[in-house]
Amino acid sequence: MLKKLKQAVLEANLDLPKYRLVTFTWGNVSGIDREKNLVVIKPSGVPYEELKLEDLVVVDLEGNIVEGKLKPSSDTPTHLALYKAFPSIGGIVHTHSPWATSWAQAGRAIPALGTTHADYFYGEVPCTRLMTEAEIKGAYELETGNVIIETFKELNPAQVPGVLVNCHAPFSWGVDPHNALHNAVVLEEVAKIAYRTFALQPTVEAMDQTLLDRHFLRKHGATAYYGQN
Amino acid sequence: MLKKLKQAVLEANLDLPKYRLVTFTWGNVSGIDREKNLVVIKPSGVPYEELKLEDLVVVDLEGNIVEGKLKPSSDTPTHLALYKAFPSIGGIVHTHSPWATSWAQAGRAIPALGTTHADYFYGEVPCTRLMTEAEIKGAYELETGNVIIETFKELNPAQVPGVLVNCHAPFSWGVDPHNALHNAVVLEEVAKIAYRTFALQPTVEAMDQTLLDRHFLRKHGATAYYGQN
Amino acid sequence: MLKKLKQAVLEANLDLPKYRLVTFTWGNVSGIDREKNLVVIKPSGVPYEELKLEDLVVVDLEGNIVEGKLKPSSDTPTHLALYKAFPSIGGIVHTHSPWATSWAQAGRAIPALGTTHADYFYGEVPCTRLMTEAEIKGAYELETGNVIIETFKELNPAQVPGVLVNCHAPFSWGVDPHNALHNAVVLEEVAKIAYRTFALQPTVEAMDQTLLDRHFLRKHGATAYYGQN
Amino acid sequence: MLKKLKQAVLEANLDLPKYRLVTFTWGNVSGIDREKNLVVIKPSGVPYEELKLEDLVVVDLEGNIVEGKLKPSSDTPTHLALYKAFPSIGGIVHTHSPWATSWAQAGRAIPALGTTHADYFYGEVPCTRLMTEAEIKGAYELETGNVIIETFKELNPAQVPGVLVNCHAPFSWGVDPHNALHNAVVLEEVAKIAYRTFALQPTVEAMDQTLLDRHFLRKHGATAYYGQN
Repeated sequence: MLKKLKQAVLEANLDLPKYRLVTFTWGNVSGIDREKNLVVIKPSGVPYEELKLEDLVVVDLEGNIVEGKLKPSSDTPTHLALYKAFPSIGGIVHTHSPWATSWAQAGRAIPALGTTHADYFYGEVPCTRLMTEAEIKGAYELETGNVIIETFKELNPAQVPGVLVNCHAPFSWGVDPHNALHNAVVLEEVAKIAYRTFALQPTVEAMDQTLLDRHFLRKHGATAYYGQN
Repeated sequence: MLKKLKQAVLEANLDLPKYRLVTFTWGNVSGIDREKNLVVIKPSGVPYEELKLEDLVVVDLEGNIVEGKLKPSSDTPTHLALYKAFPSIGGIVHTHSPWATSWAQAGRAIPALGTTHADYFYGEVPCTRLMTEAEIKGAYELETGNVIIETFKELNPAQVPGVLVNCHAPFSWGVDPHNALHNAVVLEEVAKIAYRTFALQPTVEAMDQTLLDRHFLRKHGATAYYGQN
Repeated sequence: MLKKLKQAVLEANLDLPKYRLVTFTWGNVSGIDREKNLVVIKPSGVPYEELKLEDLVVVDLEGNIVEGKLKPSSDTPTHLALYKAFPSIGGIVHTHSPWATSWAQAGRAIPALGTTHADYFYGEVPCTRLMTEAEIKGAYELETGNVIIETFKELNPAQVPGVLVNCHAPFSWGVDPHNALHNAVVLEEVAKIAYRTFALQPTVEAMDQTLLDRHFLRKHGATAYYGQN
Repeated sequence: MLKKLKQAVLEANLDLPKYRLVTFTWGNVSGIDREKNLVVIKPSGVPYEELKLEDLVVVDLEGNIVEGKLKPSSDTPTHLALYKAFPSIGGIVHTHSPWATSWAQAGRAIPALGTTHADYFYGEVPCTRLMTEAEIKGAYELETGNVIIETFKELNPAQVPGVLVNCHAPFSWGVDPHNALHNAVVLEEVAKIAYRTFALQPTVEAMDQTLLDRHFLRKHGATAYYGQN
């Protein structure tokens, strides 16, 4: 069942340490089959170097385990909430990658400061509001998804493929697990360069909209001309 | 004698360079057998790449060498003081890992700024007071242990598995040598992310207590639901 | 055709990840045959680990494809503009290397602060002015070349082998692709050291001209005495 | 001739990239035979990965080449000046290692801020005064040695095994080439930790003299008790 998707989810999870996005087991990747409405996700707390295809857990959109002997990631309710709210996405990555996490802990969105950012994120990488006591004490992981969705009320998740959860860490997504992982790497790199840009120029402001448009549309949408397609 | 414990202590010592916690021989790991009250510890000044099982030194809680041809780590009296004062711990790690050492040299505790911290440390990582001239000129390594113990008068070492020794460097601990090493890696990562958080937001304050509770208790204690157990 | 040049361009492209100048495909190297007025350049969006000699694209100075099945780098018009304006250069490197990109995003030139800089750059690494809306909406990549050329009106590109494009990233060059890559590595290292110098001494000023002369001329020109030639 | 010394100098030069102290050929190590008054030093501009025993150059204390087909490092006159002035040293390392170079470019000495520093440097790592025009235009590399020697008028090079040359980069030394390399690694690590300490605590001051004494003397001199000797 879902062999291809499982393979993609496995590879993207193994890419987490390869791209130095994680310490120990601090990250997870999932992917969704939109026809079957089934999600494949990393089991909770299993080290990447021991992770095998058969360890992956298949859940439905209500979180019921459909296949797998292990407990799914404790962040599963966040993933499911995002899949339900954002129909355009096919893969989700959660990490505590250190640069993006520093911005999340500072409670600051990352403004678009240059073309590296503009090639992937059409505007700032937003930071969620702080969660309420009720949200934290309640269905915490589900509410984490809800506060992300609230942050994207006026944003298109296909154009801004990531978010900083305040006081916590980043979530990224994409059309599939591989693409979501790609965007997680970009977010970490963009967070690092933005940090240093502010150190060099504390009053720096978001880049010119025309340049943002040019770079984002050079790589995305009908008029894209980057790459071989 | 103590074969399993020696193997665990050896592996945790070899993990110090693997996780980039040490330069040259700037770190040591020990473990305790609580039934026999014997401690296995790294010998002083031996490079990790040459370290073998038979090089490890066994001492009793008064510091008498029970087995081993080499001199134990010069920090042995610190380890022994902690084992006596903190009955819940089974392994200790001392390093000069650069991020945590920067906080120690700055004489600043690391406040809990986000969930990465909250997953492991139930509140700030404290920093000891400066030692007195008498303490430094006296039984210095023993007094280093004593100033840590004083810092934990109101703290539970099982919930805060590490400390910054002022003007010096971190000590970490855990239920066994492997777990102590794990916490040393976490402390270094947390120190790095906190440093950058302050650079991005100099007025940042400790995180909400409810969120701290949620994350710490998600991983620890009777209500934990992270991982496969 | 152009076998040697292709080999040099291939090797310099493969050096981009080796020297950690690039994430994913964020960089490209080209080289020129000054007799034939033909440029060899990386194809757009191809990962370095898959790049082969036959994937390289040969274009003339007007950008017409003379050989190759793939689309050339989307930055090709920038490369061509620089080759036309700077007759002394034989290779060009473009990357989003993080330290240099941070200076570019801050819109700041890197002053010559020490001998490491002076050994390679005879004065500051300049930063271009912001591009106009018309330039961005027009032939953007060509205009990127033009704004670099404008920045070098009073500068000798053989003595200052690199530039920061404002809000974007660095371009470097040299007498051949290998030398251009070498200068890209130096620029990244110089950008890192200068960043930290300013953090330690915010009022630091450009180094003494006599020391700049001594170091640059120790390595370059008729009186050079560094190395074996 | 001098086989053992050559082997030691070769190994220490190869350790420069291993410990990430150098980019390209930006560093050199030498060693001296105090009985024969001959110095073995790296040839100028030769990459470490190509360096062989027979490439090393033997010079006398006046800089005359006694053996070797290649030109010695352009920094040779600096090395020779230090060997003449500091009889206790047997090896010298020069690099542009980035953290120490940042302090040198900032023109700031590195104060002793903690025990990591105190274990190796008995007090601050000094920074030389700026050189005069006459010194730079004259026998520049010799004058670099002289300004270091001037800086150590009141200091013991056996107790402070390194220096920052203002606007330039660090020199380190030790009882032999291996020990000099060791101290170069320590200097870079100490420079990094001190940089971050100042970022966390801009008003931090040099550590207590008693603690400095305790740690330095724990590792050095008649009362040392660190290690196996």
